Amino acid sequence: MKRYEKFADEIAGLIRSGVLAPGQKVPSVRHASRTYGVSASTVFQAYYLLEDRGLIVARARSGYFVREHVQRALAEPEIARHDAQTTEVDVSELVFSVLSSIKDPDTVPFGSAFPAPELFPLPRLARSMAHAVRDMDPRSVVADLAPGSHALRRQIALRYMVGGMPLPVEELVVTNGALEALNLCLQVVTQPGDLVAIEAPAFYASLQVLERLKLKAVEIPVHPREGIDLDVLADSLARLPIKACWFMSNFQNPLGASMSEEKKRALAALLTRHQVPLIEDDVYAELYFAAQAPKPVKAFDTEGLFMHCSSFSKSLAPGYRVGWVAGGRYAEQIERLKLMTSLSASVPAQAAIADYLQHGGYDRHLRKLRHALESQQHAMLAAVARHFPAATRVTRPSGGYFLWLELPEQIDALKLFQLAHAQGISLAPGPIFSATRRFGHCLRLNYGHPWTTASEQAMETLGRIIHSLQG
Amino acid sequence: MKRYEKFADEIAGLIRSGVLAPGQKVPSVRHASRTYGVSASTVFQAYYLLEDRGLIVARARSGYFVREHVQRALAEPEIARHDAQTTEVDVSELVFSVLSSIKDPDTVPFGSAFPAPELFPLPRLARSMAHAVRDMDPRSVVADLAPGSHALRRQIALRYMVGGMPLPVEELVVTNGALEALNLCLQVVTQPGDLVAIEAPAFYASLQVLERLKLKAVEIPVHPREGIDLDVLADSLARLPIKACWFMSNFQNPLGASMSEEKKRALAALLTRHQVPLIEDDVYAELYFAAQAPKPVKAFDTEGLFMHCSSFSKSLAPGYRVGWVAGGRYAEQIERLKLMTSLSASVPAQAAIADYLQHGGYDRHLRKLRHALESQQHAMLAAVARHFPAATRVTRPSGGYFLWLELPEQIDALKLFQLAHAQGISLAPGPIFSATRRFGHCLRLNYGHPWTTASEQAMETLGRIIHSLQG
Repeated sequence: MKRYEKFADEIAGLIRSGVLAPGQKVPSVRHASRTYGVSASTVFQAYYLLEDRGLIVARARSGYFVREHVQRALAEPEIARHDAQTTEVDVSELVFSVLSSIKDPDTVPFGSAFPAPELFPLPRLARSMAHAVRDMDPRSVVADLAPGSHALRRQIALRYMVGGMPLPVEELVVTNGALEALNLCLQVVTQPGDLVAIEAPAFYASLQVLERLKLKAVEIPVHPREGIDLDVLADSLARLPIKACWFMSNFQNPLGASMSEEKKRALAALLTRHQVPLIEDDVYAELYFAAQAPKPVKAFDTEGLFMHCSSFSKSLAPGYRVGWVAGGRYAEQIERLKLMTSLSASVPAQAAIADYLQHGGYDRHLRKLRHALESQQHAMLAAVARHFPAATRVTRPSGGYFLWLELPEQIDALKLFQLAHAQGISLAPGPIFSATRRFGHCLRLNYGHPWTTASEQAMETLGRIIHSLQG
Repeated sequence: MKRYEKFADEIAGLIRSGVLAPGQKVPSVRHASRTYGVSASTVFQAYYLLEDRGLIVARARSGYFVREHVQRALAEPEIARHDAQTTEVDVSELVFSVLSSIKDPDTVPFGSAFPAPELFPLPRLARSMAHAVRDMDPRSVVADLAPGSHALRRQIALRYMVGGMPLPVEELVVTNGALEALNLCLQVVTQPGDLVAIEAPAFYASLQVLERLKLKAVEIPVHPREGIDLDVLADSLARLPIKACWFMSNFQNPLGASMSEEKKRALAALLTRHQVPLIEDDVYAELYFAAQAPKPVKAFDTEGLFMHCSSFSKSLAPGYRVGWVAGGRYAEQIERLKLMTSLSASVPAQAAIADYLQHGGYDRHLRKLRHALESQQHAMLAAVARHFPAATRVTRPSGGYFLWLELPEQIDALKLFQLAHAQGISLAPGPIFSATRRFGHCLRLNYGHPWTTASEQAMETLGRIIHSLQG
């Protein structure tokens, strides 16, 4: 990381922690340069970067100020506190009808589950791929079956180590994206009919997986900023024979909530006490806006009880379908199940990513990606404040690329979805995130695409439709 | 195909049909040239090719003769005729212990499930890959989710059409290898506890899949040359609520049996009458030694009841993990299940194969591959005749890369497996191919690797161990 990037992160930290409040002037270049012992040019470059990231704004002849966040204009969603309920899941049809309608490439992709592909270093990855397949040992095409390419697993283990969570390579199983990893983990620790604790709202694919495997969902409410409600979870664990938990501790989809480290510790202790395995879906972990990477709950696993699933699909290589799981005590069972269901992830894709991780500049790419997402978040939040009803509540996650909006109660999100779709705008309506069809007036918007005039116009159109639905 | 290759295939056909009997002299060059209206040089080249393929041998100063087949020395295995039995499957542990012991790259790979990687055009594929990823539309990485890349599906549909079985592209779902396709198909048409008809002996992975999905196996005996016993199947279908059949109609693993076209028609009619779906595992279809490609049973499907699964893993691109299923009336359900379990096959791997199919010379590669496998089969059959007990029975399949051997009854194949493993030789013992642990004195040998002195020595060692086990 360059000197000015480091300095920018320091200032960003002060803004985030509230030391520098919204509207407050940031130190002048001369002052900052003297106080922090850096050159004026470093300060300049850092401020440009922070402006670019949407954290500060320049006012003519007055210098830089901490941006007034739209958060001040719009409240955050209320936690939909409810007791855990046990439910048979039957949401697939609804999800498929929504998904198929957002496949159209000409649609404004607010409903998409992915960031824009142009935010990824695809040409550099292509070079890694060309290089990797040219030099590939022919034997690797049969030798690198499950648990996967040793070179790639070593690179992943290295990243865990740098992140302060050393893991043996043997615990890692490479999968066809995180979705396969999550499926495998769930099958290893459950039988049809079992209870699984999931979040409410939850990532719709997890609902579909539960439905497919004939598992019953125990929905645990999630606070839009702080993550799952531990009291409800503790109560459920005490009352019900829950066989596994499937949670996202960082930038939860769809809320964007992240648990504090303290809360993660408490969750780990609670699950360990009950000997209930955690399947941790951590695919957005690399997309944090703060200076420091958040830790997974797996970091507080003392008994190999937690399975940490992630992938490169959201941070580096969409479409390559390379994910993994750090499987703890379940690693061997996961590996065997993988052998029986799809044998192995694509060997060239694994080789390309291993090569890229070693030579491609992943961390540099990630920094750029995080800054882009953060500034796109600001743009979308501003557009929500501008175009949506004042009663709209919206999250302001510290990572990932989703906003969760709570509209006035009378708005039917499915109706909104249809009207928006007719105008060429996709969005993800609240009900697809719940086994019990909650969140009828909520929606998830994707800010993972570069902000354009078309995005701004689409937000205006959405706002107009919402106002019309208010009657 | 070149003129001499075509002519060689004509002669090969005469040999296969018995018009030219083993030991008989083939027409002299002058005679052949006159009779068939081809140049002497074409005849020469054709005879060289046939010699290379192990079909004819040159005798000094006498010309070419049809090779005396080892088949004359060793009988073919007897059909293990038995009534269909319903069995809970519990074979995974045994299979895993065998598989893990053959992973060692220094082992003579007679137990391998794959042909030698060097028989594949990996450098040419690497060029296709480099080309495909360089030119890849970034949007394809999210747009080409299940059912898969349109370009690849079009190429696959084209091959079906050329093979005389036109199919709509919409019926095709790209998967992570055939194994995932088979898993998806089975899950679409069964529930835990259901009965599924499989072959005896059967590919061990199919036994593992049944075990995993808690399905019960109805084992239908397979004739080593002619394929499954239709009488037993008809009887089973009449008596039992069989929910699906999982069969390989071409070069069945492990026997190498292939059904005649007439038998395939009869099977199709039988299943259609009972409205029982067929899951057809046809991964060896391209590895035929005859002049004509064999048809799948799917070619006689009148109601979209049959699912045809295949892949490029055994014929072009091992390790790329690209397979597919022509799903008939089940295509949409398969596509949805794929979306929920692994989302999509690796997009670069799909793009590379689509590019190769269009520009790489797949048919030329396949001809070379088939000839290599055929000549390796001859070498291994000769080694069996030389080194194994005279009472050994062995198949002589007309495609694929497996021999199935029936040893004298007192030989314990698992014991043989262990002793051979200690000598650095792998093999696949009979019991892993049966839910009921039949085939205790049988084994499967892989001839998919170029024949070397080491192969010959390994066969000699195996023969010695077998003789010692005979006591």
